[in-house]
Amino acid sequence: MLKRKLRMGMVGGGRGAFIGPVHRMAATLDHEAELVAGAFSADAAKSTASGKELGLDPKRVYPSWKTMIEAEARLPEARRIDFVSIVVPNSGHYAVAKEFLQAGFNVICDKPMTTTLSEARDLQRIVRKTGKVFALTHNYTGYPMVKQARHMVHRGMLGKINKIVVEYPQGWMAGFITNPRNAIGMWRMNPKTAGGSCCMGDLGTHAHNLVRYITGLEIESLCADLTTFVKINKLEDDGNLLVHYKGGARGILYASQISAGEENPLCIRVYGTKMGLSWKQEDPNYLYLKDPAGIVTRYSKGNSNLCPEAQRAARLIWGHPDGFIEAFANIYRNAFQAIRAERTGKRILTCDFPNADDGVAGMAFLETILTSHKSKAKWTKMKY
Amino acid sequence: MLKRKLRMGMVGGGRGAFIGPVHRMAATLDHEAELVAGAFSADAAKSTASGKELGLDPKRVYPSWKTMIEAEARLPEARRIDFVSIVVPNSGHYAVAKEFLQAGFNVICDKPMTTTLSEARDLQRIVRKTGKVFALTHNYTGYPMVKQARHMVHRGMLGKINKIVVEYPQGWMAGFITNPRNAIGMWRMNPKTAGGSCCMGDLGTHAHNLVRYITGLEIESLCADLTTFVKINKLEDDGNLLVHYKGGARGILYASQISAGEENPLCIRVYGTKMGLSWKQEDPNYLYLKDPAGIVTRYSKGNSNLCPEAQRAARLIWGHPDGFIEAFANIYRNAFQAIRAERTGKRILTCDFPNADDGVAGMAFLETILTSHKSKAKWTKMKY
Amino acid sequence: MLKRKLRMGMVGGGRGAFIGPVHRMAATLDHEAELVAGAFSADAAKSTASGKELGLDPKRVYPSWKTMIEAEARLPEARRIDFVSIVVPNSGHYAVAKEFLQAGFNVICDKPMTTTLSEARDLQRIVRKTGKVFALTHNYTGYPMVKQARHMVHRGMLGKINKIVVEYPQGWMAGFITNPRNAIGMWRMNPKTAGGSCCMGDLGTHAHNLVRYITGLEIESLCADLTTFVKINKLEDDGNLLVHYKGGARGILYASQISAGEENPLCIRVYGTKMGLSWKQEDPNYLYLKDPAGIVTRYSKGNSNLCPEAQRAARLIWGHPDGFIEAFANIYRNAFQAIRAERTGKRILTCDFPNADDGVAGMAFLETILTSHKSKAKWTKMKY
Amino acid sequence: MLKRKLRMGMVGGGRGAFIGPVHRMAATLDHEAELVAGAFSADAAKSTASGKELGLDPKRVYPSWKTMIEAEARLPEARRIDFVSIVVPNSGHYAVAKEFLQAGFNVICDKPMTTTLSEARDLQRIVRKTGKVFALTHNYTGYPMVKQARHMVHRGMLGKINKIVVEYPQGWMAGFITNPRNAIGMWRMNPKTAGGSCCMGDLGTHAHNLVRYITGLEIESLCADLTTFVKINKLEDDGNLLVHYKGGARGILYASQISAGEENPLCIRVYGTKMGLSWKQEDPNYLYLKDPAGIVTRYSKGNSNLCPEAQRAARLIWGHPDGFIEAFANIYRNAFQAIRAERTGKRILTCDFPNADDGVAGMAFLETILTSHKSKAKWTKMKY
Repeated sequence: MLKRKLRMGMVGGGRGAFIGPVHRMAATLDHEAELVAGAFSADAAKSTASGKELGLDPKRVYPSWKTMIEAEARLPEARRIDFVSIVVPNSGHYAVAKEFLQAGFNVICDKPMTTTLSEARDLQRIVRKTGKVFALTHNYTGYPMVKQARHMVHRGMLGKINKIVVEYPQGWMAGFITNPRNAIGMWRMNPKTAGGSCCMGDLGTHAHNLVRYITGLEIESLCADLTTFVKINKLEDDGNLLVHYKGGARGILYASQISAGEENPLCIRVYGTKMGLSWKQEDPNYLYLKDPAGIVTRYSKGNSNLCPEAQRAARLIWGHPDGFIEAFANIYRNAFQAIRAERTGKRILTCDFPNADDGVAGMAFLETILTSHKSKAKWTKMKY
Repeated sequence: MLKRKLRMGMVGGGRGAFIGPVHRMAATLDHEAELVAGAFSADAAKSTASGKELGLDPKRVYPSWKTMIEAEARLPEARRIDFVSIVVPNSGHYAVAKEFLQAGFNVICDKPMTTTLSEARDLQRIVRKTGKVFALTHNYTGYPMVKQARHMVHRGMLGKINKIVVEYPQGWMAGFITNPRNAIGMWRMNPKTAGGSCCMGDLGTHAHNLVRYITGLEIESLCADLTTFVKINKLEDDGNLLVHYKGGARGILYASQISAGEENPLCIRVYGTKMGLSWKQEDPNYLYLKDPAGIVTRYSKGNSNLCPEAQRAARLIWGHPDGFIEAFANIYRNAFQAIRAERTGKRILTCDFPNADDGVAGMAFLETILTSHKSKAKWTKMKY
Repeated sequence: MLKRKLRMGMVGGGRGAFIGPVHRMAATLDHEAELVAGAFSADAAKSTASGKELGLDPKRVYPSWKTMIEAEARLPEARRIDFVSIVVPNSGHYAVAKEFLQAGFNVICDKPMTTTLSEARDLQRIVRKTGKVFALTHNYTGYPMVKQARHMVHRGMLGKINKIVVEYPQGWMAGFITNPRNAIGMWRMNPKTAGGSCCMGDLGTHAHNLVRYITGLEIESLCADLTTFVKINKLEDDGNLLVHYKGGARGILYASQISAGEENPLCIRVYGTKMGLSWKQEDPNYLYLKDPAGIVTRYSKGNSNLCPEAQRAARLIWGHPDGFIEAFANIYRNAFQAIRAERTGKRILTCDFPNADDGVAGMAFLETILTSHKSKAKWTKMKY
Repeated sequence: MLKRKLRMGMVGGGRGAFIGPVHRMAATLDHEAELVAGAFSADAAKSTASGKELGLDPKRVYPSWKTMIEAEARLPEARRIDFVSIVVPNSGHYAVAKEFLQAGFNVICDKPMTTTLSEARDLQRIVRKTGKVFALTHNYTGYPMVKQARHMVHRGMLGKINKIVVEYPQGWMAGFITNPRNAIGMWRMNPKTAGGSCCMGDLGTHAHNLVRYITGLEIESLCADLTTFVKINKLEDDGNLLVHYKGGARGILYASQISAGEENPLCIRVYGTKMGLSWKQEDPNYLYLKDPAGIVTRYSKGNSNLCPEAQRAARLIWGHPDGFIEAFANIYRNAFQAIRAERTGKRILTCDFPNADDGVAGMAFLETILTSHKSKAKWTKMKY
C-alpha cells in the first residue's frame, strides 16, 4: 500500500456550497489525503477566490474543470492529483466524471450519479473500461451501525425478509418563502440543474441505496405517487412508493421535502420471519433489533461485539458519538483503499463503498418512478 | 342527567377473551355503569360459567344473545339493561347490533362495525330510524393527546394539511407457529369470522379512523397492495396504501401483522404548510409539534394548557400516565352522555365518540381497499 | 377464597381531592370491591354531598370517621365494610388507622404511614396484635416492570449491587404563585397536616420504598441536605442524600418539588457487578437492562418472557399501555388476597403489597434525614 | 489574522493511545493546522515509529519532549511549531506544559490540568507571565447545544438557578477482569500516573467544568463520598457529591466508572425559578427546555434560531449529526483564534475555550473533594 497522502482535486464546492466542505473534511479526517487542486466554480473568479481561501497553490486553482483536466494531466505523476471529487449540481456529474475518468483520474462523485439512466450506464461502461476507481457518496452507508445492520441481515439473524419500510422526510420546503433554510436547495427545484426529479433524486435515492446496502434486495416493481406542493418548484417535492422486492418482500419507500418540522430523519425498518430491525440517521450510533417475544435490543457503536466492518467504521469508542462527517469519511477511507491499489497497479476486488453499479441502480430507480407516476401509479417493472 | 349507574349488558367476552374484559373495565372505571346481564358465549355452558365468575345474577346470564334480547325486553324498564356492549367476532356485529337496536336498546359495538359495506349502511339506517345510541369503540381516539392533536389541526395551527403518514405495524404473526402470542388472533385469519380482511379490518380501520378524527379529512381515492405472508392465514396480514385525500393532501397508510418485534405502535404524523405533528400509541401521553424552524414542542397530558376535550379526557394530572383502559373508558364515558340523554327522552346533538357514520366510513374504506388490490393497485375512488 | 365483592369504606377523598378518586378507581377496577360507606371530609356537609355524588346509601355516609367506626361496627357482618381506605392528609393517618384496626377493620392507607417514627412503630404493633391487614399505597411498586426489576435483581442477574441512583424530581412548586398546578399541594407545605417533611415525605419515601422493593437493600447510614426554596413553604421542598447501604452499595437519593418543568419522573438505576438496570415512572411499561459489553435490552410489559409477578400485574397484553391507575389497582388487588383470607379466618403469609413494616421503614428514613440535616449533613445511622 | 495553517506539535499520543488521535483529528478538521512535529512516547523507538506512521519528517520526530523543546526552539520561526498539544497521562501535564510555555510555545493540554492544586496555580502564573495561549480540552463545552444552554441561562430564561444535577456515569470498570474495554484505562487507576483521583479526575472534572460553563456558578462548599469497588484500583472509581453553589443553588454531582452498562452519558439538568433545561452527551445535538406549564421544547443543532456561538459551533446544518470529534475541534478552532492573535503580536481578550483558570478551578475542586471525603463527608469550603 502507498503510505503517502493522496492528492485530491475538487470540481465544484466553492464559497457558500453545502456539500463541498463536507467532502473536504471527510476526505482529510484520517490524514490520508490533502487537497491540492480544484476548479471550485463555473465562475472563474469565484473559483480563484475559493482556492485562495483554501490555501491552495494558485497555479492549481483552475478557471474550469476542463482546464483542470488538461493541466493536471500534464503534471508529472508525482505531483498530479490521485483523484477528483465532483460536487457540482447533479446535471454536471456525468460530463465531469466521464472526462476525468477518460483522462486517467479516479473519481469520487456526489449522488445521484447522473440525470438519466442512459448517462449512468455510459459512465458505468467507462469505469469498467478505464479500470479507474469510481465512488459515489451515498454517505449514509458509512455509518457503523448501518454496517452492523447489513451484517445481521446477511447472517440471517432476521430470517427471510418480508417487509421493508424506509422513509426520508425533510421539511425545509414547508413554508418555503419565509424559511431561511432554503439556501441549500434552490437548484434542486430546477430540471436543468437537478435532472428529472427533485425529492426522489435528492432523498429517495439515498433511501433506495440504504435498502440495497442493508438487505441486498433489489426492487422488482414499484408503484409511485409524486406531488409538487411548493408552487415555485418545477419538480416533485413529495414521493410515496409501494414496492415489491425480488423474492417476495413488500415495502414502502417515501421521501418528502414538505414534511414540516422534520430535519433529516432517514429511517429504515426491516422485518424478517424471525426479527425486525430499525435504524435512524438522526440517532446514528444505535441499532435496534426487535424480537417477536417482546425484547428490543440496542446495539451501540464502538463496541467489540459488533462485526469487523462496523468496528472499523467507528473512529471512537462507545459513548463518543460519531457524526455525519465521520460516516462520510468512511466512504472516502474505503475508496482510498481502492485508489491506493489502483495507484500501485493492483486491482482491488471487493470494496465497501458505493460504486458505478450502485449509481446505475439509482438512476434505474428514478426512471422507473417517473414512468410509474406518469401512468398513474401503475405497477412498473424496475428498469435494470 | 340521570344520576344512577347505567345497566350494562354484554354479548361475547366470555372466558379467555381479550377485548371483553377491556370493555368491562372501561365501562365501569368511572362508576357510571354496572354489568347486570350477558350472553357471553355462543356456547351456553361457557356463557353460564363466565356469568358466574363475573358475579351476575344467574337469571340474567343467557344462553344466547337472542334469548337475552327477549328476556331483557320483557323486564320492567327500571331493571332492563340501558345498553349492550357487543364484543363477538366481527362477523357477528351486524346481526346482534341490528336486533338489539330494533328491540330498543342502545349499543356499544367493537370495531369494525360489520363485515360488508352494505351491512354497515343498513345498520346506519337502523340507528337513524330507531334514534338509539350506537357507539363504535375506535378506542385510540379516546386518548387525551389525540384530542389535543385534533384541536390543533382544527384551529389551523398546522396550516393547510399536505401530508399524512399513518402506520399500524404489529408483529405477532411473525414466527407464528412457535409464538405464544397467537392466542389473540386465530379467528382473525378466517373470513367466516373476520369478514373480507384480516390486517386492514383489525388495524387499518383504526389507522383510518385516527386520520379522520384528527384531521377531518376524507379519502378521495387510494391504491392498495395487500399480501399474505403467513401460510395458514386465509386473509391478508400486511397492507400498504397510497392515499389521496379530498382537498389535495397525500399520504401513506399501512398496517401489518408480520412486522416482527413491533408490539402496538400505531403512529400518526400530520404535516401542514406551517407545522407538523406526531403521536404514537405506545407513548400516548405526549404529543409532538414540529416547527420548520427546528423546534419540537412536546405537550403532555393533564396540563391546563390543553384544549378542554383533552383536559377532560385525562383522569389524572401530568406525569401520572393514562393507559389503554383509560382511553377506552373515554369512549364509554362520552357515549354514556348520549345514553343518559336518550334514557331521559332527550337527543344529544354533538358527541365525541365514534358512531355509525364512522362505522360506514370504515367499511367503505375496507371495500375500496379490496377493489383496488384486486385491480393490481389501481387508483380507486373511495366508496362513500 | 371469598368470591363476593369486598365492601369498601373510605375516610377522606371528598370533592376536589386528588388521591381519593384514584383509590376508588383502583379499588374497583377489577370488580373485586365496591364502595359502600364513607366519611369523606372533616366537614360533615361536604362529606354528605360527596357521598351523594358517589351514589352511596345516605345512611352510610358519615359526618366523621369516628361515627363511621361506631356505626359500621354495629352493622351485621354481612353488611359491614371489609376494609377502609384512608386518604386524609398525612397527619390523620395514624389516629384513623389505629382506631379502625382496633375496631376490627382491615386498612388500606395512603403514604407516608404516619408523621413520626414512634407513631409508625405503634401502628405496626397494633397491626401485629390485631392480625388485620394493613396495606400502604406505595403505588409505584405496583407497576409490572418494577416487579420484573425486582425479579432480576433477586435472581442475581445484575451481580452484587454496587450503586443505586434514585431520583424523584417534580417542578410544580417552581414559580409557585402563578402556577395553576398548586392546587394539589398547599397542605403539604404545612407541618400540621404534612408532618415534619414536605418533599421527602411526599416523594422521598416513594423513592426509598422503590429501592427497598427492587433491591431488598436497607440503608445503613445517610447524609442529607434539605432546602426550602419556596418562601411560603414551612418545610423543605428539595432534598439530596448520599446513601450507604448495608452490604457495601453506595448511592444517591434525591427528591425535589422545585425542579421546574419536571412532571413526575421517578427514576431508578441500579448497577451491579454484572449489569445495570433502569426504570422510569413516566415510561412505565419498559425496563432497560444494560450490559457492560454495550448492549441495552428493553423488556416490555405484557410479554410471556417476564416473571410471573410481572405477568400477573399486567391487565393487558404487550403494546397496550398500563398506566398509573392500573399500577395502583395492583396494590389493591394484592391486598384483597390478604383481606379475603382474613375474612375467612385464614392468615396469608406472603404478600406482594407494602405493609406496616414498610411504613415503619419509611418513617425511620424520614427521621434519619431530619437528624442528618440538622447536624449539617453528618453521616447518620438509619434509625431502625 | 494569520491565514496560513498553524504548525502543530504533539507530546504523547503514540500508537495505541486513545486521546492522541482525537486531538489530531480535531486539530486538523477545519484545515487550520497541520501536525509537523512530535515526541509521541517516553519510549524513543515507539515515538519514532509513531511519527513515521503519521508521515512526519523524521527530523522532527523526537525521542523525548525535552529534546523536542530544544530542537524546535532552535528552528527559525517560520518553521517552528506554533503550539504543542500535550496528551500524556495526567502526571506529566504540569512539567511538559510548564517548559513549553517557558520556551515560548502556546499549549493545548488534555485535562485535568495537573495532579495537584499547587501545580495548577503555578502553571496559571506561568501562563499569565508568558502571555502564551493555554487551552485545556474540556471538550464537552465544544458542543453547539452546550453553548446554547449557556446562552439561555445567561439571558435569564431559566430565572434564578436553584438546582443543578450533573452526572457522569461510566461502566467500563464493572466486571473489569473480563471486559475488553479496559485497555483505555489502566493508567487511570495508578496515583503515579493519574494523580490523587481516578474517577473524579477523569470524569468529575468534566462534570464540574460543564456546570461552570453553562451556569457560571461556582461551588461554595461540598460534601463528598468516594468509593473504590474494583480491587486492583488504587484510587476511587465512584464519587457522589452534595454541592452548595454560591448564591444559593443546591446540587448533586456524581461520577462513576462502575455503573455497569453505561457508556458515556454525561448529563446536566439545570432548574431555575422559571424553567429547567437538560442536555446529554450521548444525544448531543439536542437541548431540552422544560416549562412548568407542561411543555418541553427541543432545540436542535444547526438552526438559525440559536445563539451565534451555537450556530458557529455547528459544522453542518440541522439533522446532520455533529459528533465528539466536531465538539473537540471547536475547542481547537476557538483556541486557534487566540494562537493566531498571539503569533501576530496581538492579545485576544475574550475567548470561548477552557483555559488555565478553568484548570485551577478543576484542581481546587479535586482537592476539596479529597479533603471532604477524608473528613467523612464533612461540608468543606471550596479551595479557591
